[in-house]
Parts: sequence; structure tokens; C-alpha cells
Amino acid sequence: MAGITENGRRIMVAIDEGDESIYALTWCLKNLIFKNSKDHLILLYVKPPRVVYSAFDGTGYLFSSDITATMEKYSQQVADCVLEKAKLICGDVQNVRTHILLSIIFTLNNSVETRIENGDPRDVICEAVQKLGVDILVMGSHGYGVIKRAFLGSVSNHCAQNVKCPVLIVKKPKSNAGGDN
Amino acid sequence: MAGITENGRRIMVAIDEGDESIYALTWCLKNLIFKNSKDHLILLYVKPPRVVYSAFDGTGYLFSSDITATMEKYSQQVADCVLEKAKLICGDVQNVRTHILLSIIFTLNNSVETRIENGDPRDVICEAVQKLGVDILVMGSHGYGVIKRAFLGSVSNHCAQNVKCPVLIVKKPKSNAGGDN
Repeated sequence: MAGITENGRRIMVAIDEGDESIYALTWCLKNLIFKNSKDHLILLYVKPPRVVYSAFDGTGYLFSSDITATMEKYSQQVADCVLEKAKLICGDVQNVRTHILLSIIFTLNNSVETRIENGDPRDVICEAVQKLGVDILVMGSHGYGVIKRAFLGSVSNHCAQNVKCPVLIVKKPKSNAGGDN
Repeated sequence: MAGITENGRRIMVAIDEGDESIYALTWCLKNLIFKNSKDHLILLYVKPPRVVYSAFDGTGYLFSSDITATMEKYSQQVADCVLEKAKLICGDVQNVRTHILLSIIFTLNNSVETRIENGDPRDVICEAVQKLGVDILVMGSHGYGVIKRAFLGSVSNHCAQNVKCPVLIVKKPKSNAGGDN
């Protein structure tokens, strides 16, 4: 069983462009990480499967390798940007808890690691959990947007069924009525 | 967002006769509850839907009301027994953490409440989460046994899709290779 050890737990949070995964990360930082723990956070971003382009676009013009390279570069920049934002949130939550909630100071002994992988998020997340010896997987309930979900099915459902470690599925409330308490 | 407040969080653990829900409870106690928190634990046992008996059994004898009452009494005793066992585990985990893991003493300020409800566990758990203002729902990944699952579908999947609060799905490892770390 995953548990509190001197070495801490390996907690993976699946991050994407959506607010829900950022909410899940914030929830995890506030609710799952113990004071003075040595938990290790892994922020995983999965770049969607590459679209298989026809050699010609709709107007008959050949896709140049420059365009493909530009799209790939853009995709990488999005991934870097999303993970950078997620890392900043780890710091923000630390500060809030240090300054305001003195009784539960969150000392970030926790190391934060970011990873970018390519492929179908359902498979990539499950494989990463196993490969990296993750103790807890945290994810938003939807992930990867309405349109992609229609094709891929629910990523969180798939992972909950297929990974061996505990899975925490966090939904972002539709209203802010719950506040931040 | 559910979070650490002076009043603690309301954490519901769905308990049944299986080892997996007890594993989920133990995991929750070790991994989710903060030192000195005022978290409130709700252990929910859902008695399966009553079988609709024919007035006559297969041999043509009338079911007496005594038999029905005996079966109902037995069902209640099972529910009481399961929840009593679950409450004892809360105490056991407290003791282990107090005596062995001194650095993370788990002071059970946490109150433990037990509840027994009747009906389809999928609906009952979702309704209870909403009715009781639960902040986190914890459950085993299967629950309710292989045969019942074949009829009811996965309880945890249903709840993960339908409740509004974060859901933690804990699987019991098939081997004990992971130990208790």
C-alpha cells in the first residue's frame, strides 16, 4: 500500500490545457500532501497524438516540412507553458499556506518534476504510472476537452480502471459557491 | 473547493463486506487525513436492494413473515458487524501511527460516524454525498462483489461520474509485494 514513508510518496498529476486539471492540482496540494512530507510530485503533460496529415492540404498545396516543424514547435511550446503554469501554482499554494494557514504550513520539501510525453493520454498515463512507480494518480474528471473526449472516451474512467495505484478524480465545481475553503 | 479548514473535511468511505473497501479505508486513514485535523469520517454501508420474494418458494410453501424478519435481521447484523470492524480499523491505524511513526502521529480528533442505508449502492452513495455535504468520497474500485457488479455495473465508475466532489478510488493490490510502505 502506498503510504507515508520517510521517502514520501510519488504523486502524479495529469495536466492539460484545461482549468479542471489545474483545479485538481491545487486540490491535491491542499488536501493530499502532508506537512513536512517528502512527497515527490510528477506533473505529466501528454501531447495529443499527432494528426496524420495528407501530403496535400485541402487546396492541393503540399505541406512543407517547415509547416510541420512549426506546428510541432508550437505544440512543444504549449506543453512547456502549461507545465510552467502548473509549477507556479505549486509555489503559489505553498505561499498561501505559509502566510495564511500557519497551523498547516506546507513546506515544499516536495520536489516537483515535469514530464512531457506523446500519444493517447489514456495509454500514456497508465504506462507512466507503472514505469515511474507512482503511488497516487490525480486527475480532473474530464481532461482533454469535450471534442477529444467524444473520440477518446473519458480519460479518467479509463485510468481508474487500468492503473494499479489509487486514483483521485477531482471535478471542478461549475460555480464558485464553494469558494476556497 | 474542499480543503483544510478549521472545521475539517467531511470524508465519506463506502464500506462493504469485501476486503477492498477496508483496504480503501486504511489507505484513506494513512494518506488523506492530516495530523491534528478535525476531519469527520463517515463510514457508509449500503444494504443491497431487498430481493422481491414470491409469496411461495420453489417448493410451493408460503414464506412466513418470520422467515422474512429473520433475513432482515441477519442483513442488519451483517451491516452492523461490517461497520464495527471498520471503526476498529480506524482505531488500529491510530495506534500504529502513534507508536511507530512518531513523526506523523495521527491524532484522531477526527470523529467517526457510521451510517446504514438501503438501496442500489450507486444511487444511495451519490445521494448521501450530496445530502451530507461530503467533501471527499473514498471507495474501493470494485465494491459489492463480482456477481452484483455484473448486474449493477461498476459502483465506483458510476459514482466518479455522478458525484460533484472529488472521488478517490483505491484498488487493493493483488499481491502483498507492496507491503505497507
